[in-house]
Amino acid sequence: MALLPNSKLFHKNNKVDPEKNPKIVENVISSRPPPTPAKDIADERARTNWDLKEMHEFLEGSEAKSTEVIRLYQSIERDPILQTRPEQFDLTQKEERQVVAERIDQMSKYIETESYSKFRRRLQLMTVIDPSMGIRILVNLGLFLNCIKGNGTQKQYDFWAKKKEAGSLKQMYGCFGMTELGHGSNVAGCETTATFDEESDTFIIDTPHIGATKWWIGGAAHSATHTVCYARLIVKDVDYGVKTFVVPLRDSQHNLLPGIAVGDIGAKMGRQGVDNGWIQFTEVRIPRFFMLQRWCKVSRQGNVTLPPLEQLSYISLIEGRVGMAADSYRIGARFTTIALRYAVGRRQFAKNGAQQELQLIDYTLHQRRLLPYLALTYAAAVGTDRLEVEHNELLANLDKGLATNDKLLLKNTINSTKSMFVDSGSLKSTLTWEASDLIAECRQSCGGHGYSSYNAFGKTWNDWSVQTTWEGDNNVLAMSAGKTIIKNVQQILNGKKLKNSSLEFLNDAPTLSKAKKAVIRIKEHVDEPQRVLKAIAALISKFAVDLIPISHQSWDAIGAQRVTLSKLRCHYYLLETFIERLENQVKANSPIRPQLENLLKLYYVTNILGPFLAEFIRFGVIQPKVAQYITSIYPQELCLRVRPYVIGLTDSFEQPDNFIHSLIGKYDGDIYNNYLSAVKITNSPRNHKAPYSEALEQMLNRVSIDERARFERSKEVEALLSK
Amino acid sequence: MALLPNSKLFHKNNKVDPEKNPKIVENVISSRPPPTPAKDIADERARTNWDLKEMHEFLEGSEAKSTEVIRLYQSIERDPILQTRPEQFDLTQKEERQVVAERIDQMSKYIETESYSKFRRRLQLMTVIDPSMGIRILVNLGLFLNCIKGNGTQKQYDFWAKKKEAGSLKQMYGCFGMTELGHGSNVAGCETTATFDEESDTFIIDTPHIGATKWWIGGAAHSATHTVCYARLIVKDVDYGVKTFVVPLRDSQHNLLPGIAVGDIGAKMGRQGVDNGWIQFTEVRIPRFFMLQRWCKVSRQGNVTLPPLEQLSYISLIEGRVGMAADSYRIGARFTTIALRYAVGRRQFAKNGAQQELQLIDYTLHQRRLLPYLALTYAAAVGTDRLEVEHNELLANLDKGLATNDKLLLKNTINSTKSMFVDSGSLKSTLTWEASDLIAECRQSCGGHGYSSYNAFGKTWNDWSVQTTWEGDNNVLAMSAGKTIIKNVQQILNGKKLKNSSLEFLNDAPTLSKAKKAVIRIKEHVDEPQRVLKAIAALISKFAVDLIPISHQSWDAIGAQRVTLSKLRCHYYLLETFIERLENQVKANSPIRPQLENLLKLYYVTNILGPFLAEFIRFGVIQPKVAQYITSIYPQELCLRVRPYVIGLTDSFEQPDNFIHSLIGKYDGDIYNNYLSAVKITNSPRNHKAPYSEALEQMLNRVSIDERARFERSKEVEALLSK
Repeated sequence: MALLPNSKLFHKNNKVDPEKNPKIVENVISSRPPPTPAKDIADERARTNWDLKEMHEFLEGSEAKSTEVIRLYQSIERDPILQTRPEQFDLTQKEERQVVAERIDQMSKYIETESYSKFRRRLQLMTVIDPSMGIRILVNLGLFLNCIKGNGTQKQYDFWAKKKEAGSLKQMYGCFGMTELGHGSNVAGCETTATFDEESDTFIIDTPHIGATKWWIGGAAHSATHTVCYARLIVKDVDYGVKTFVVPLRDSQHNLLPGIAVGDIGAKMGRQGVDNGWIQFTEVRIPRFFMLQRWCKVSRQGNVTLPPLEQLSYISLIEGRVGMAADSYRIGARFTTIALRYAVGRRQFAKNGAQQELQLIDYTLHQRRLLPYLALTYAAAVGTDRLEVEHNELLANLDKGLATNDKLLLKNTINSTKSMFVDSGSLKSTLTWEASDLIAECRQSCGGHGYSSYNAFGKTWNDWSVQTTWEGDNNVLAMSAGKTIIKNVQQILNGKKLKNSSLEFLNDAPTLSKAKKAVIRIKEHVDEPQRVLKAIAALISKFAVDLIPISHQSWDAIGAQRVTLSKLRCHYYLLETFIERLENQVKANSPIRPQLENLLKLYYVTNILGPFLAEFIRFGVIQPKVAQYITSIYPQELCLRVRPYVIGLTDSFEQPDNFIHSLIGKYDGDIYNNYLSAVKITNSPRNHKAPYSEALEQMLNRVSIDERARFERSKEVEALLSK
Repeated sequence: MALLPNSKLFHKNNKVDPEKNPKIVENVISSRPPPTPAKDIADERARTNWDLKEMHEFLEGSEAKSTEVIRLYQSIERDPILQTRPEQFDLTQKEERQVVAERIDQMSKYIETESYSKFRRRLQLMTVIDPSMGIRILVNLGLFLNCIKGNGTQKQYDFWAKKKEAGSLKQMYGCFGMTELGHGSNVAGCETTATFDEESDTFIIDTPHIGATKWWIGGAAHSATHTVCYARLIVKDVDYGVKTFVVPLRDSQHNLLPGIAVGDIGAKMGRQGVDNGWIQFTEVRIPRFFMLQRWCKVSRQGNVTLPPLEQLSYISLIEGRVGMAADSYRIGARFTTIALRYAVGRRQFAKNGAQQELQLIDYTLHQRRLLPYLALTYAAAVGTDRLEVEHNELLANLDKGLATNDKLLLKNTINSTKSMFVDSGSLKSTLTWEASDLIAECRQSCGGHGYSSYNAFGKTWNDWSVQTTWEGDNNVLAMSAGKTIIKNVQQILNGKKLKNSSLEFLNDAPTLSKAKKAVIRIKEHVDEPQRVLKAIAALISKFAVDLIPISHQSWDAIGAQRVTLSKLRCHYYLLETFIERLENQVKANSPIRPQLENLLKLYYVTNILGPFLAEFIRFGVIQPKVAQYITSIYPQELCLRVRPYVIGLTDSFEQPDNFIHSLIGKYDGDIYNNYLSAVKITNSPRNHKAPYSEALEQMLNRVSIDERARFERSKEVEALLSK
């Protein structure tokens, strides 16, 4: 198992002048000095001519948030339970679950002592380094309690979240019983039943067949005392569709209740620290008042009241998507930091007799592989911060509107909610996909060392991959966002104007879609961010207009195109935010400004104009003659501008070593010593025989096949038996 | 942890007519019948109107190979040690290594009893289901012995491979000591030294510093008794560059020899079953005759003879690349089978009040995601078979040429070797990348169930990922292939003609590169495979000609473009083979012909014309007006043609359940029962409390924060202490 060379490069005979060649026979020094990655990285770090904190504040969106994040990094690094250690990459599934349980316990102490918003930020950061722990807490605080908050009455929420202390990780622990073995994305198709029994004033929760087994339920296997159960409400033989119910799973002794069958769904690609389970209900009775009845009610007599304003009950689903978009930024920051530190410290192949090999990052292809991801990470930072801010505003307005019964505020908030569904869906799907690719590309860029667990790529990719699938499968979410965009464009063409919506830029669709003149006609145009933004708006408009007629026949037929629209919408959002914040939040003479301008351009040229070029050209938004400039010449030029500052630009993410959690990605850049010394600790060289060594040695020293066959196939036996 | 719905689709109230609605209160039946994936799959299987064996013979390239492969599948399925079982997805690293060791032992018995070519086929198949076992054997039989064969004398090879029985996995076990901590791709830069000591007639092997530590060496940690060591030959203070030496690591008692330090490099992203290690040599002496001296010799007096024909010594590196290209086909077959069976059996969302939900495979986007990979797998099957055949011919010719000293044959073989370096490099890199993407896309297409270990995606992806990095990093290999193509085109423009080369199609470069007329001008042209082949040749020629001037200044600057050329070369090779075999090996009236024609076209439209469209248009090979037909209309049409036969087309891969090794991908299609019942066996529902349950329960039932603080922060204490 070794990395074979490019055969051509293999042929050189590196003859060395005997004069200059020290006496190797003494076996103390090589023909070359040892590698000095730490020095290379330190030298490049010295080029950083800006204040890291200022850059970090730009990335995080505010001074306060930046300071909080940095303090939390420090708190986590110091905490004996929450901190990372290289040997954690050696954990078995059982051991990982043990560690996760200890960390949940530790987190339960912080939730009692710090502000909830700070705790949520702590949880968000912990989720990057321990996604299993993150999701186990979020299943309770996010999914379970958000579901109760969104669908239950205030009294129901107060009872379970506060009186029963689920909101403090105490007394009870909730899980989220939505998906079934046979139903993932189509929740409305769930087949678990909740049948009202008027006589006993209870609902009977039941799993009618194997397909309706609740499946993938995080926390169900071992932790959860309760679940919110998505089940079809059946009253007097009428099926009212899927509603939500709180169903206890375990008693106060943590034993399963009768009628509840639960199992561990077992080994997974990642998130091994989560006890995902399956649940089957067999005639489980719950009191009528365990149905979440904010919007939908069943009276004592079995009269059903249906939701007046159903959309509001799904706002709670947005939070997870907003969080995953933000996770994408932090994962991008972490892995571009690792890959770029390695690319600066690692040398490979010497040019024309140079004394030292070339740094990886000085290869054009290496720059083209990594720097567009660095630029994307910067764009994702500001874009996902905006998404978080807008989501918080929306929730605050909703609470205020409901509390004061302010109809206008509610109406405006519902408009914002509609675009928030599009934005959170398109950012979640686009950015979690991008982050998957980013991790994989950064891994490959570190060669064989990227394949070592201790450098964090493998476990992170495995834990990460589910982000493209859960809480809205990416393709389903993106198709939904694309559909809404097309519908909005159609309504705007018919005279409607969007208000209180982040999609207001679509109000220009009638003009943009009819424009004959390309938006980008000469290469200088590529250098104008506002023009590029307009080009995206024009492409979305023309593309949507083009799809409207087909959509009338079949939405299905334009599935792929709807996904493309969703990606374009995500990039519009990021670029718009990046431009706006660069204009308004950065001083004119700040040394971070030229850096950000380069990254901004590199971002849109390599992540938007390049990948969607065929569409831009097809719809006449970009003139074909600019194509080569966009795909080849300008990216190369921008990469060269960014190249000298990669250490400072990744240092600006301010992620400490403990958070980076990668032996080749540490701040000091002493790649080889950090790596070998940790590997020696986790795998003692004293264990030079494997547990199975005896069996292996027996195989190597086995007797001949004739002897094992008792010599009964020999010539002698043949002679004997043939007589 | 659950899959949240597309919020829009969530709003439906699936009211059911009470008349038709059975009494759910009885809790025995649902409002819908349970899912019937097995029936859906069986129904579609009935559409198969061709002989699976005939199709399999086409895929494998010959009747004999097809029969051998099918018999081996059966042998592996029956073998108690080699067969797969679902619980293998639960193994820890230690357990996996134990299983791998048992399997190597079992394989060592087959190597003694079946032909070597059949054994190699068995090993190739086993490598798909147990890549760790595969590589552990291949490190010895492939890398170690190939290195001795390629670089050692016949007597050296006979001694270690036959007399010392390394070729039978007996007595000794070799590893491949090439890469170092500081050197992967640049093997010529290795810094381990082998210094000739004339007095004792030995070489002194030494690791001068940490960067020269041998790293990633498969088998070194616990198994290997010997290594071939790539080290700089130093004789009389002159550095002759990197040569190869056989160095014993362990004595006959399997204890490490003095001067040898070895360690396990520990946890990895995948291939956990391989004991990859690091090695440091400190003044280790080996006899002079342990240097591999077929091409390079050191006499008793220290006179050095350098290789007369160095290129020949690297032919042995090709084998691994040929193997990995073939692996890509079998992995593609396995995972498209899983994903397409699931896509037929799984239903999601009902259309306009239909009784049943729609099968996943009937969504346009789902077809566009999976069917191009199915088509690619067919193309990869025939292409990689051809590569294997040509590689075997080349080795046979080389042996014959050397044995008979046939100079002409040797010269021709060396020409073929040059193009074989390009072909194996471009197929290995392109197809291992494609297979990575294929596994990831198939995984996502199975939603949450794709994330379960028992469905094979996660472990396979992890084990697979190293294929893009080792035995020639994909980017390095592809850049090398691209460079050779450009150089060849330049030489051809200068009047040279290629002979005995698979790149002979480049001889048309002068004409093709000058042609003004596009090759594909109207949509009907897209339907002509030979024309598409010509279009690729034209693109390669024009692209290469365009790059020649830049290459004179900097090969580095065109790194990305060289990778693109390599990918195009791979596709040319696959398409050329597919067309040729379809013409010559399939009867005109065979029912497999229309199927193959559809797949052929789907392959080149979605894997070649679509992805490289920007280049095709830029160089005027395809007219822009055909673009939308290529990217959208025609693929959709072809997908609809292939769609009805996906079960038969994947059944034709003939991979049995045990080889597929995925609960949702079994032949009978009884997805949910297969899945749940196996999960119940591997994770008994009786274990409904986790080992850490007590700690968890203590957390939930913890006393208040005041009590934990000994009530010393109370109002009473405040009053007391404030006095």
